[in-house]
This record gives sequence, structure tokens and C-alpha cells, in this order.
Amino acid sequence: MKTQDYILSILVDDEPGVLSRIAGLFSGRGFNINSLSVASTAEPDVSRITMVTCCDDQIIEQIKKQLHKLINVITVTDLTEKKYVQRQLALIKVNARSEKKAEILRIVDIFRCRIVDVGQSHYIIEVSGDADKHNAIVDLLQPMGIIEIASTGAIALARDNGKAKSNKK
Amino acid sequence: MKTQDYILSILVDDEPGVLSRIAGLFSGRGFNINSLSVASTAEPDVSRITMVTCCDDQIIEQIKKQLHKLINVITVTDLTEKKYVQRQLALIKVNARSEKKAEILRIVDIFRCRIVDVGQSHYIIEVSGDADKHNAIVDLLQPMGIIEIASTGAIALARDNGKAKSNKK
Repeated sequence: MKTQDYILSILVDDEPGVLSRIAGLFSGRGFNINSLSVASTAEPDVSRITMVTCCDDQIIEQIKKQLHKLINVITVTDLTEKKYVQRQLALIKVNARSEKKAEILRIVDIFRCRIVDVGQSHYIIEVSGDADKHNAIVDLLQPMGIIEIASTGAIALARDNGKAKSNKK
Repeated sequence: MKTQDYILSILVDDEPGVLSRIAGLFSGRGFNINSLSVASTAEPDVSRITMVTCCDDQIIEQIKKQLHKLINVITVTDLTEKKYVQRQLALIKVNARSEKKAEILRIVDIFRCRIVDVGQSHYIIEVSGDADKHNAIVDLLQPMGIIEIASTGAIALARDNGKAKSNKK
């Protein structure tokens, strides 16, 4: 069975225990979570969980069904079925020895990243884009010596002019 | 007791159940999660969870102690004690009626955001920065009609030239 990355956008009530139930569902059934973001939305008391999971099409149907059954889950949107814009953000702390500085700045320039902190011997680079862009820049910076990476999970919005509607059954 | 936002950077083994245990700890004890990001790091089998929580200084000590006790938790770094760079990313879908387009583009320009999708009657704007910048741009775009927001949790890296060390007791 062919596996692929699916991106789910889940609106939930901002209640204690929702995240724990969702994470428990995934670990209990052995579903895989590649990345996860949880943050508030423009509506009060509603949070959005964006989750990337790698599985086959039977498993994703199971996941969606199980998510719909959880209390405090308002909507589950499978963005993979739509046209969507996806972004993630990373901060990359990289060694900036003097002989490498020019090369790092070139990479930052080409990838349209930003340097957000400069120390005696390091830069912190902010990069936003899709997963491919992230992997490409990490590969290029690896030889300079990456000290630390902090990365958000992916977020996404559908490219139609609408709002995710409740599809809870 | 004075409450404030704390930002914790937690390195964990990439094992099923870790996120569920951490989320369960917070919901079980009534600790609050403002935002959360989970993503892989440059090291294989290690994920980083960045979490923002609003509480007082007694509660944060409890949270850190409890996190240290969980299995598969490698390090817990309280970045609030250090100088750090913090960023979060949001995608904002906003109504772009013709009479408002110029004003939206002005806001995008001033805040150094990017328009990442254009439809017949909407823009999707990508904004990266700290929580204050996000709140400011959301307030300014609100009158235009925000359709949807997807936001990552905050991520952060300390501004010293080092790596978070294991501080597990």
C-alpha cells in the first residue's frame, strides 16, 4: 500500500484534554505524527491543530473517522484533497567561522532567509517555506556545522476563498 | 502570584506515546498550554517540542520537575531564563475586495510579510515574527475581514553559541 504525507487541519474547542486525547489516539493505534502545531485562532476558545502524518489511504480514513468521534473536535479538514498553501518555520543556529561566513550569507540570500541573530561565532537563520526547502537548506548548511535547529510543524490553508466547514457527522 | 508566559524547549526521543504523556501531564494537572510545536531535529530519532505556557513561577518549577520525570524526555530547557530569539509563523486568509487591496498591500509592506496566494477575492498572507507582531497585524487586518488563520506555535533558540545540554536529574 502506497504511503504519503497527509496534512490535517483540525479545529478544536480550547479545552484541557483535547490535545491529550488526540495524541493518545495516535500513540494508542500506532499512527505516526510527523509534525504538529497547536495555536489559537481568530475565534475565541477555538484552537487549530495542524498535523502531518505519513500513512496509506486506508489508515488516513481511519484516522479521520476516529478524530471525528472525539469530543471537542469541531472540524477535521484533509487539506491533501485540496489545493493548499503549506509553510513551516525553522530557526537554524550554525557555526560562523570567518572563512565560512561569505558562503553562509550566499546561501541565506539565495534561499531568501533572514539572519535574526549574530554572535561571536554563530548565526541564527530564520527560514520559512515548505519541507523541501527546509531539507535543502539544512543539507547545504550541514558542512558549516549546524549547532541546533528548532522547527515548527507545518501549517496550511486551502487556496479557495472559504473557511473550513464543520464536516462532523 | 504573578503569571507570565514561559517558553520551554523539550528534546524527546522520537517514540510513540511521548507527546501523549506530555499532553496528559498538562491536562491532568490543569496546566495551561498556549501553543505547541513538534518537529524533527537534525539528529535522527530526536524531536523537539517547543511549548508556551502561562503560569506563575511555582507552577513552572512543578512543570519542569514533572517533565524531567517522564521517560523519553532527554532535556528540558527553560528559555525564559536566557536571552533567546523567538518566532512564530501564521498564514492569514483575508478578504481582498478591490477597495481594500491597496490598504492590505500597505500593511503587508510595513510588516515585511509576504503574500503567498492570491484568489479572485482573497489574499493569503504569510507573517513571521513574535507574538506581538502577530497580534498587531491581526488587529489591523480584522476590519478587512479575516477568513481564516493557521498559526504555528512559537519556536525559540538561545542566543549563546551552544546547544541545550542534558539537564535531566
